[in-house]
Amino acid sequence: MNSIARVTVLAATGLLLAVSVSAHDEQRVFNLGDFTFESGETVPDAYITYVTYGQLNGDKSNVVVLPSWYSGTHDGQAYLVGADKSLDPNDYFIVTTDMFSNGLSSSPSNTAPPHDGPRFPEVGIRDNVRAIRQLLQEEFEVDHIRAIIGFSMGAQQALQWGVSYPDSAEVIVAICGNAKEYPFGYARLEGAKAALMADSAWMNGNYKSPPVVGLRALARHWTTWGVSAEFWRQETYRLFGATSIEEAIAADEEYMLSRDANNLLSQAVTWQQHNVADTPGFDGDFDKALASIKARVLLMPSSTDLYFPAADAVYEHARIPNSTLAIIDTIWGHSAIQDPEAAVFINRTIRNFLDSD
Amino acid sequence: MNSIARVTVLAATGLLLAVSVSAHDEQRVFNLGDFTFESGETVPDAYITYVTYGQLNGDKSNVVVLPSWYSGTHDGQAYLVGADKSLDPNDYFIVTTDMFSNGLSSSPSNTAPPHDGPRFPEVGIRDNVRAIRQLLQEEFEVDHIRAIIGFSMGAQQALQWGVSYPDSAEVIVAICGNAKEYPFGYARLEGAKAALMADSAWMNGNYKSPPVVGLRALARHWTTWGVSAEFWRQETYRLFGATSIEEAIAADEEYMLSRDANNLLSQAVTWQQHNVADTPGFDGDFDKALASIKARVLLMPSSTDLYFPAADAVYEHARIPNSTLAIIDTIWGHSAIQDPEAAVFINRTIRNFLDSD
Repeated sequence: MNSIARVTVLAATGLLLAVSVSAHDEQRVFNLGDFTFESGETVPDAYITYVTYGQLNGDKSNVVVLPSWYSGTHDGQAYLVGADKSLDPNDYFIVTTDMFSNGLSSSPSNTAPPHDGPRFPEVGIRDNVRAIRQLLQEEFEVDHIRAIIGFSMGAQQALQWGVSYPDSAEVIVAICGNAKEYPFGYARLEGAKAALMADSAWMNGNYKSPPVVGLRALARHWTTWGVSAEFWRQETYRLFGATSIEEAIAADEEYMLSRDANNLLSQAVTWQQHNVADTPGFDGDFDKALASIKARVLLMPSSTDLYFPAADAVYEHARIPNSTLAIIDTIWGHSAIQDPEAAVFINRTIRNFLDSD
Repeated sequence: MNSIARVTVLAATGLLLAVSVSAHDEQRVFNLGDFTFESGETVPDAYITYVTYGQLNGDKSNVVVLPSWYSGTHDGQAYLVGADKSLDPNDYFIVTTDMFSNGLSSSPSNTAPPHDGPRFPEVGIRDNVRAIRQLLQEEFEVDHIRAIIGFSMGAQQALQWGVSYPDSAEVIVAICGNAKEYPFGYARLEGAKAALMADSAWMNGNYKSPPVVGLRALARHWTTWGVSAEFWRQETYRLFGATSIEEAIAADEEYMLSRDANNLLSQAVTWQQHNVADTPGFDGDFDKALASIKARVLLMPSSTDLYFPAADAVYEHARIPNSTLAIIDTIWGHSAIQDPEAAVFINRTIRNFLDSD
């Protein structure tokens, strides 16, 4: 198997290996100082990491934010960035950010006691967008952004941005993600967490060495949830170099073993608990929160996504005032951005959407 | 929660609680003697258990076999049996059988050393149909049956019957199940097994007390695979008395804790490995095996089944000579037989199918 094969279910986990990456700046750290999470807990010297592509123009009108997804980092965004993609760094100043708990930004794995490991605060999607907002304002003196474009938990962040900062973004694109986690997704993530936590080597998060059995079980959970039945029938994993089901699964395990268990659990809870209706001022009214979004919104669910079924995006489309629905026709399930054909469709659709006003 | 609530994911696990059961005989044991499994291993004094409804008629033309499904037993068949159901015990002699490893027939949990626990032989679907065949021949001197009707792994047995004994059954009905396990299903079951085996208390099957953490993780795996996203959106679990996602999941856990871990793993392997193409004489040719079926076949996939996608039944329908496809329109996913409306459709369709020749 080649290097892509090893991240097959990148496929399932939604991670995209950067095959050809446009020139970008080095990874940078933005210090948040004492950051109080929505849970009420404060982490001193918290930070988020990010990487930029292109140049901020004179009137600061070309900022595009690409937030990260579950288990991924800023370097997963290459599928959108390039002269032949939806975002040309010659036109846009692209800020790719890392979520809390992804192992690069402040996370269970890199935070000092007493907030280390399982003691890291519960993180909300709103915590992530607030940190990105602070980064843009303090580092670049930017309030207004051209767009925020996210996949999966990145889509959660993008839609939350539209509710939290209704006058900030012109365009929001949500790929394979929703404005809240629906009951099915919540319950599904209970299965993911339970598979990892079943390993007694996890020790309630106080492990000294990785709970490898649990991480492998977690990988086997994602393996089939991340794509579609048809993906397996057609043995699409062969595109990654895997020659059998077992090899495809092994590649997922290898990927998951590269991740920290507490980080994975923390991000899963962030995913699970998300709901734009919990934004202050909406009293839990989901439809009201959706109706408050002022940006032009492009919703791009995958036709075969098992995590974020297209029906949920259809529901939200009917309630977000200025929204467009473009369903990605693919057998790659949640991993639609890895489908070479779908990636072309996604890029063309986003480019047209950005150019259409 | 009432007693049905506790088996919600009966829902997910496909178990159906017998709400109103027609009069039936006591559970009986059929001794197989030394039974050599397809794997080549022999278990001495092996047996299968079964329960009958109704009376065998004079010319022995009214036998209907109902094989059991994953984690279920003979007592799950009430949804088909009754004067107002598809099978009236006044008309049919109904034999409901238990699969190997379900805890009633010979299983890891009830077999003496050296074949106990994890040392119980690997069981094939063909082993199960061969044992049922032997039961019918030796106990009732029956070669010819009116029908074999199965759900899920019961459907695997029903279709295998048609390939193994092409002149034996007049009618085969496969509900939410296929003639082989497709790659997606195989990989999905890897996730199920890994969740249970991640618990070190499982001890490679040599546990002294149940691996409860792993059993709970397994339950959380089934919880979302067993139904559809729409089932959760509509909070359909309230029909069972659960008032929240957590209560629905807890009900599944309670059910899974009532089962033996080695039995569950054994049945999962049986499920995973099944393929009618492996029947002697077909050299692995799946289409050829399907083409050999002489019975009239009714395929009833669920429109939202995540285990056995309807597309697979459509594929098989095109290759089984005398087959009819009737898709069950339901949001209950694999657990279609628990959907009250779908159950009416299933019973009416089977009754009409039986009456139509």
